[in-house]
This record gives sequence, structure tokens and C-alpha cells, in this order.
Amino acid sequence: MTSPEATSEQTGSAHSAGIEGFWAVVPAGGAGTRLWPLSRSGAPKFLHDLTGSGRTLLQQTRDRLAPLAGDRVMVVTGQAHQDAVREQLPEIAVDNVLAEPSPRDSMAAIGWAAAVLERQGAEVMGSFAADHVISDDSAFSAAVRSAVQAARGGWLATIGIEPTFASAAFGYVRHGDPLPGLDGVRSVIGFVEKPSVQVASTYLASGDYRWNAGMFVVRPGVLLDLLAEQDPRFALALRELAAEPDSLAERWPSLPKIAIDHAVAEPAAADGRVATVPGGFGWDDVGDFDSLAGLLGERAALTVLGEESRVRSSDATGLVVTGSDRLVAVVGIDDVVVVDTEDALLVTTRERAQEVKAIVAALEAEGRDDLT
Amino acid sequence: MTSPEATSEQTGSAHSAGIEGFWAVVPAGGAGTRLWPLSRSGAPKFLHDLTGSGRTLLQQTRDRLAPLAGDRVMVVTGQAHQDAVREQLPEIAVDNVLAEPSPRDSMAAIGWAAAVLERQGAEVMGSFAADHVISDDSAFSAAVRSAVQAARGGWLATIGIEPTFASAAFGYVRHGDPLPGLDGVRSVIGFVEKPSVQVASTYLASGDYRWNAGMFVVRPGVLLDLLAEQDPRFALALRELAAEPDSLAERWPSLPKIAIDHAVAEPAAADGRVATVPGGFGWDDVGDFDSLAGLLGERAALTVLGEESRVRSSDATGLVVTGSDRLVAVVGIDDVVVVDTEDALLVTTRERAQEVKAIVAALEAEGRDDLT
Repeated sequence: MTSPEATSEQTGSAHSAGIEGFWAVVPAGGAGTRLWPLSRSGAPKFLHDLTGSGRTLLQQTRDRLAPLAGDRVMVVTGQAHQDAVREQLPEIAVDNVLAEPSPRDSMAAIGWAAAVLERQGAEVMGSFAADHVISDDSAFSAAVRSAVQAARGGWLATIGIEPTFASAAFGYVRHGDPLPGLDGVRSVIGFVEKPSVQVASTYLASGDYRWNAGMFVVRPGVLLDLLAEQDPRFALALRELAAEPDSLAERWPSLPKIAIDHAVAEPAAADGRVATVPGGFGWDDVGDFDSLAGLLGERAALTVLGEESRVRSSDATGLVVTGSDRLVAVVGIDDVVVVDTEDALLVTTRERAQEVKAIVAALEAEGRDDLT
Repeated sequence: MTSPEATSEQTGSAHSAGIEGFWAVVPAGGAGTRLWPLSRSGAPKFLHDLTGSGRTLLQQTRDRLAPLAGDRVMVVTGQAHQDAVREQLPEIAVDNVLAEPSPRDSMAAIGWAAAVLERQGAEVMGSFAADHVISDDSAFSAAVRSAVQAARGGWLATIGIEPTFASAAFGYVRHGDPLPGLDGVRSVIGFVEKPSVQVASTYLASGDYRWNAGMFVVRPGVLLDLLAEQDPRFALALRELAAEPDSLAERWPSLPKIAIDHAVAEPAAADGRVATVPGGFGWDDVGDFDSLAGLLGERAALTVLGEESRVRSSDATGLVVTGSDRLVAVVGIDDVVVVDTEDALLVTTRERAQEVKAIVAALEAEGRDDLT
């Protein structure tokens, strides 16, 4: 499962158990609403194999982290999904799957793991979403190692992905000057929310902005102390939760529901406490079917995720996801998205794929839990 | 089942059993390939309710003929479909469903019925396809009565539908001068195959052409004699088949496979033996999903054939046919055609709907009888 790191790095030779003292935290949450009906509340995005590789997104995330963290992997997921998570990652120790009673966004999820790891004496932790697709594991590893080195120095380090186009779908991290003694690492001036395409173009032109992939590498104690500067009660609650695991059901509902970006990263950047390392690897958060289509195939083709023999087409391009036994025939339509599952079918286009959220919202309003 | 004719007609008062001596022949064949996967070889088009009326196309055809022919209805269908036909039309006598061992096109089908009816002494017969959709039954009845009157005089009469646009999808009948003594009836100069849209426009502009709906009204003996002028062996074989019903399996395979239009109507028109009456009713051969979509709804809407509660849409127009239990969601796509059945799904557009034939041909070539 673990493999020695092939590239050179500055922290010493590769260890068959990865970077010493480094823990990977994998938040496995998110409904994946824009990937309905493939993604359901009962079986969200990270539990699916969206690349046709034979490994689910969650499993691919764990695979990618193995050379860096060995068995030091902690998954944070919803209680409804813990069984599926354990089934997909049988090698992860029981105690290393934290099961949230309800969704409280990323600060609580990552912060809880940080508090547990702090008690265990973990040196550095890195947070890596369970449902992103990354190519070039070697470049990924190099970026993580660089971030770990910065984290050891007390920084809240984040990996900034080299942007390949002026995307309006991602947040950006704006970097400043290089940090002395940390090769390739720069200070962070701030984070920006998803910009317009126009503004994103200026970002790319300036060369000072990268995509914020939400990958934070930091000492657990530093993370919680930074949180404490903004919300001391929240940080304390998380530390107490780690000290008293049985208090989960009682404490959890009162934890603030806030993203780590807002809770810690943005204020810390304003205080000059954040560093960024460049991520020169392919990265996709596979947010919707348009994104998935682009990931899996060429625009001039009809890509199939699933059993190809079940699909027949004539002059059609786009994406077909086959999830039932039906034959799917697509004729004379470009950039189509057809998602065929046993109990629900979606037909849309790549351009409009995001709007499936409206359908899911309507079904939820109708109480159709069986479908959402 | 029969109802008195409400409109005035020239042949005398309406009879509760329809037009005396008049038999309706209903050829129920045709694979309906362009309506796959709704239409299958095992359950072709005419067995389906395509108008959402609760009655299938076959049943609607029979209903329409009841005021004109009473119980004097003969259905010609494939052996594979005779059980379904009898089930849908339980009131039709056993002997009045002729079951073809194999498809031999329309001359054999209609000619066989003609030969049987000739032996029975039927006065006049009319042939009406099982899978067309007609509106305004009153105008239909009036046209048929007019055609029967011409047929009594020895003519091969055909109903020409007033064209509403320059369709390239139908054949046309070109009429000449009015026939003396037969109100509204004209001679037929000839038949033309499906023209280009450009040529069709000139037809409409001239006012001398109507759509050929393939509805022929004629004395059975006249039809067979006209056939005998072109192909005496064929006419003889049909008459011998009617005389010796047990010879069906033996005779059938050697019958020519030819449409009645080519076998009789065109040569008879050249010989001045064909008359046409105007059909001022809505008529659609529902050849493909584009046609069906136009029949069922407005272009600016998403029309559902099937269970509406199973369809969710956002900013979509076109046609959804629901034939399974699952939810169908259509988002941001215009003029779409989605045909959802238990074992096959079609996604196309109204404009390209005809091309489903290529998919069916491919499946047939692969031997996928289970699907076609």
C-alpha cells in the first residue's frame, strides 16, 4: 500500500511509511447535488467511481496519500456513510473514521480531526477532500512535502493549483513574496471567492493567483489556536470533544456551521500567517456533469462512464453515465448529458448541467427522500 | 358501438349499422421503427396508445369506423400480433382477423381481405391503416361516404387529405376534373412519391395536389380485377387463397411483396380508373417522434406521454414518453425527445428523431431481437 517517494525532496529520504509524523485528514462530506442522480444522499459522490478506474474517489484519495501518510489517515464523514467508508477503506482503523452526527461544514469536520490528532501528538496534518480528482501523483506528493515543511515552521500552508484557465468556478489564493528558507513557498495575501470570468482573467494575467483547492497543511495545535483567535468557544468545544468522545451527540449540534476558509484561513491570511505552495498537478473538483464530461473525454466524442456495450449512438457528443441495465441510445445531439440510474434519469446538456440542483431542491421540498 | 351518422349525406339516411354493404379493412402491420423503443416488433405502433386517450391507435381506428361499417371490420395483421389484436378488439369476429405468416407489404394484405370479402358478397370495401391519427370524425365519415358512392360506380376511390403545409414526408395525389354525378369527387391524374420540400411547395401553390393517406375505397372485385390487369398470377393467387384458407402457409411466401400504390393505384390512375375525394380532417401518420410531439403538444412546452407525475423539468421543451417507473428529469434543453422504457432509453431531438432507424438497424444486425 505505501510506496517510497521517487522524487527528490528536501526533508530527507523517503520513508516507506511516508512523511514521519504526518497525518492525512480526509473530509468525506458534501451531497454532490449537482451530480444527482448519480450522487445521492445515501451514496454521495465520494463513494462512486467517477473516473472508470475501478477505484472510487474516496479510494483514489486514500491511494494518493499512502506514500505520504502510510496508515496515518483519518476520515471524517457523516454517520450515514461510515459503514460505506469502512467498507471501501477496510485498512483504516476503526478509530480513524470520525462519524459526524450531522453536517456542520468543514471547520467542525477538520477541526475535530485536528483536536483528536493534537491529543495523539501528531506533528503535522493535511486536509484533502475525498471527492477531488488529481492527476500526476508525483507532483502532488512534491507539493504536499513542501507544504509539510512550511507547516512545521508554524505556517498554515495551502496548496495553490496553477490555474489553467480563467475559471469562475473556484476560489483563488493570492500570493505575495517568497518565504525565506522555504523553497517555492510564498506568503498569502488573501483568499478570494469565486470571481467572474472577467476578474478571473485578470488574475491569470497577473500571475499572482492560484486556485484554492482547500488543501490545508498545518500543525493541529496551530490550526486550533488560529481558530481560537477568531472563536475561542469553538476551538475549546472541539478540544473538549476530542477529550470526551462520548460527548459527541451532545456537543455536535451546537458547533458553528462554517467553512474552514472563513473560520480560519481568511483571518489568518490577513494576519500574515498563511503560506502557499504551488501545485503543478491536474486538479478537478468534479462539481457537476460538465466537469465530469471534460475530465473523462474529448469534447468531440460521446464518453461513457459505465458499461459501454449498453450505449448506442449516432452523431452525438457529451457524456452518458450508465447505471441501469437499459440500452441507452443517443441520436443527433451535441454536448448532451444522460445519467441513467435504476430509479431516476437525467437528460441535460453540459452547459446547463449545474441546474440539476433545482430538480433536487424540488424533490427535497416534496419529501422525495427515496430519490434524493 | 355504432352510432348514427349526424351529418347529411347523399346516400340516404344513416343506418345504425353504418353504410349498407360497406366493409372496413384495417391493415395492422408496419414495424414503427422510427418510434423505437416505444414501438417494438413484438408490440408495434398500432398496439399503443399514442394520444394519451386511453384507446390505442388500433382501437381508435376501429372506433372511427364503427358508425360507417358497424361490425363489418376485417383486420389484417401479422401472426405474431393476432392475439394482441383480438385482445384489443374483442368484438371483432375470429374470422375477421386475417393473420399473415410474414410481412408482404400492403397489396397482399389488402388484396387478401378483398378476395375474402369478394367471396362473401361484400359490396364495397375501404382500407384504413391501423396506426394513423385522425381528428374530426364527422369530416372523416363524410369523406368515406363520398368515396363509397364513387366506388359503387366502379371507381378505385382514394381520400386525398387537404395539405396544411409543404410536407416532404407524404406522397401526393394529383387530381384533375370533377366527375359528373359525383359531388366533390375528381379524377386522379397520378400519384407522386414523397417530393422535396421545394416541389411540395409548388404542389400546394397549384391547389391540384393532396396528401395520399393510403385510404382506398373500392369494390373488392374491381380491386382484384385491376390487379389482374397488372399481375394476373397475383390476383389469381389471392382469389385461390380466399377459396382455400388452408393453403395459406403454402401460398403466402410466394406472393409478391409490393405496396398497393405501385401494384394497382398508379397503373389504374394512368388508365383513368381512379377518383379522389377531399378529406378535410386532420390526419397524421405519426411516423416518428417529431410527428408525435407535434400532435400531442405545443412547441414551446414539454409534453409528456405517460405518467406526468414521473417527469420533472426545468426550462425544457419537447416530448417525454414515460414507459417505466423511474423519475425523468429534463433540464435546459429544447425540442428534446426522451423515450424511457423498461429496457431501452432513447435521447434525441425532434429534428433528428427519424435517425433512430439507424440504431434499430444496428441492433437488428447484432441480433438483438430482445430489444427490437
